[in-house]
Amino acid sequence: MAPILLNVGNESTDYLEHGLVHVKNPHLDFMEEDILYHFNLGTKTHNLPAMFGDIKFVCVGGSANRMKAFAQFIFKELELKGDCNDIDDICAGTDRYSMYKAGPVLSISHGMGVPSISIMMHELIKLLHHAKCRDVTLIRIGTSGGVGLEPGTVVITDTAVDSFFQPQFEQVVLGKVIVRSTQLDENLAQELLQCGKEIPNLPTVLGNTMCTHDFYEGQGRLDGALCSFSTEDKLEYLRKAHEAGVRNIEMESTVFAAMCRVCGLKAAVICVTLLDRFKGDQISTPHELLLEYQQRPQYLVSHFIKKHLELHN
Amino acid sequence: MAPILLNVGNESTDYLEHGLVHVKNPHLDFMEEDILYHFNLGTKTHNLPAMFGDIKFVCVGGSANRMKAFAQFIFKELELKGDCNDIDDICAGTDRYSMYKAGPVLSISHGMGVPSISIMMHELIKLLHHAKCRDVTLIRIGTSGGVGLEPGTVVITDTAVDSFFQPQFEQVVLGKVIVRSTQLDENLAQELLQCGKEIPNLPTVLGNTMCTHDFYEGQGRLDGALCSFSTEDKLEYLRKAHEAGVRNIEMESTVFAAMCRVCGLKAAVICVTLLDRFKGDQISTPHELLLEYQQRPQYLVSHFIKKHLELHN
Repeated sequence: MAPILLNVGNESTDYLEHGLVHVKNPHLDFMEEDILYHFNLGTKTHNLPAMFGDIKFVCVGGSANRMKAFAQFIFKELELKGDCNDIDDICAGTDRYSMYKAGPVLSISHGMGVPSISIMMHELIKLLHHAKCRDVTLIRIGTSGGVGLEPGTVVITDTAVDSFFQPQFEQVVLGKVIVRSTQLDENLAQELLQCGKEIPNLPTVLGNTMCTHDFYEGQGRLDGALCSFSTEDKLEYLRKAHEAGVRNIEMESTVFAAMCRVCGLKAAVICVTLLDRFKGDQISTPHELLLEYQQRPQYLVSHFIKKHLELHN
Repeated sequence: MAPILLNVGNESTDYLEHGLVHVKNPHLDFMEEDILYHFNLGTKTHNLPAMFGDIKFVCVGGSANRMKAFAQFIFKELELKGDCNDIDDICAGTDRYSMYKAGPVLSISHGMGVPSISIMMHELIKLLHHAKCRDVTLIRIGTSGGVGLEPGTVVITDTAVDSFFQPQFEQVVLGKVIVRSTQLDENLAQELLQCGKEIPNLPTVLGNTMCTHDFYEGQGRLDGALCSFSTEDKLEYLRKAHEAGVRNIEMESTVFAAMCRVCGLKAAVICVTLLDRFKGDQISTPHELLLEYQQRPQYLVSHFIKKHLELHN
């Protein structure tokens, strides 16, 4: 079936004019109530503008513990009043996602893989829309496998590509394949790269990020329960990826980029690499070092957010 | 690109002869250590045969809280010695998945969507292999949207199908599309259906289960942040699904079925429906009733496990 190319127009420039978050669904206007089921929030049960209207930055990442730690970290970095340990999980009524607010920053977990983050993104975009948020920047801070990089390197995504190294996200809607562009905001990526350079001992590069739907076979790992290819097959695939500009591999960036683009949200992806996939598949780095690596995207984003808030104050 | 059809041979009958769990990866034999990263377990750091060698049933589901509740429930049902509240999360060192053991039953959460459950399945199958488990039955107990069924109906999956109603799972491996069969164990499904009939007030049907990679557009919902189709388009798709034998829609069954089949594991999928998608998209059922619905697959599985253990004692 020939894929249908959607949303390659200039929707993504809308935010420059209005600053509002665009839902692209005419049906929403006719709904009396909107239940954001996986957040355990709703338009009738919660005052979303009062709860979220001041949000300017949304940071998302796979692990609930990590996103809680980030919320506490940015709370301290922004010198907000109160005790950072008092930040409650706004989605406490469900265990699908966790959500924490620290001043103008929202920190949300999204689980692993495209379907998991896509459910979160649908409900987050509706939340920002219902809350009438303006000029919001979304940043995914995650972990990844590196392709020819020292472990611990922070990769700011230039373009999110699929397993065929294409800058697109394919999805099935009512039995038809549709394709969306995964273009991210170039200026934002450059600005984040500059932030990385300003922080000592934070190796930061700009590169393409490959998003796969499987961690083992789908990323050419030799250590899954199933594997039908050789070490040489694996290395050849990684070499091709590297030639296509891929510097890291994760599992969420394409749908994140595609949905942000359609809805006029400025977005970036910043992932630290936990290993160099040319050298291995297993993550055997000591726990303490892994924790340190995972903080690097947080330091970078904190630096970026502080710069922006100072500019506006 | 023409897809490559893999693993449609008679691998799935192997378990009848040996009862062992088959990993299908020749590389594993040459690994000194196997770190099951997302479980925070490993062959050098944990005595997996001692910890898991007696496992006969593995039940998996999306939500960590629900799988903890199931472990406590089955602990009581099996009249195991001790306090069910003392069951600890075996994966406590990570928040990617939760895992609880109650006698011969392992209960694990897998998050939402195919990529998330596939990571768990790779590591689970390796765990069962390393632990030398025999005659293991895997059952996914989940929630779903119903297609023409009363909410609260329990659907035992006949065949897991994709968004095109095909009994197959497509995956990209090293840039090539491969296709695996999603055939489940027919006898097991019939046995579970019989169990459902033996429990009062537990409406149970056998039907096909459609597995999608998106909860909103991918399932024809009109209430996501994005929607480019009409109510009539949605209903037509659901009617076609119903004609193809689909009785419920969820987001994990195809890869679960495909991986179990390849590795010679008897497997079944049992999901309760939370709403009838012909009548709506939002899950607005009261919280208490949702909780009651979600216990139904647990009652059914408990009945099945008790019957089997009595037979063998």
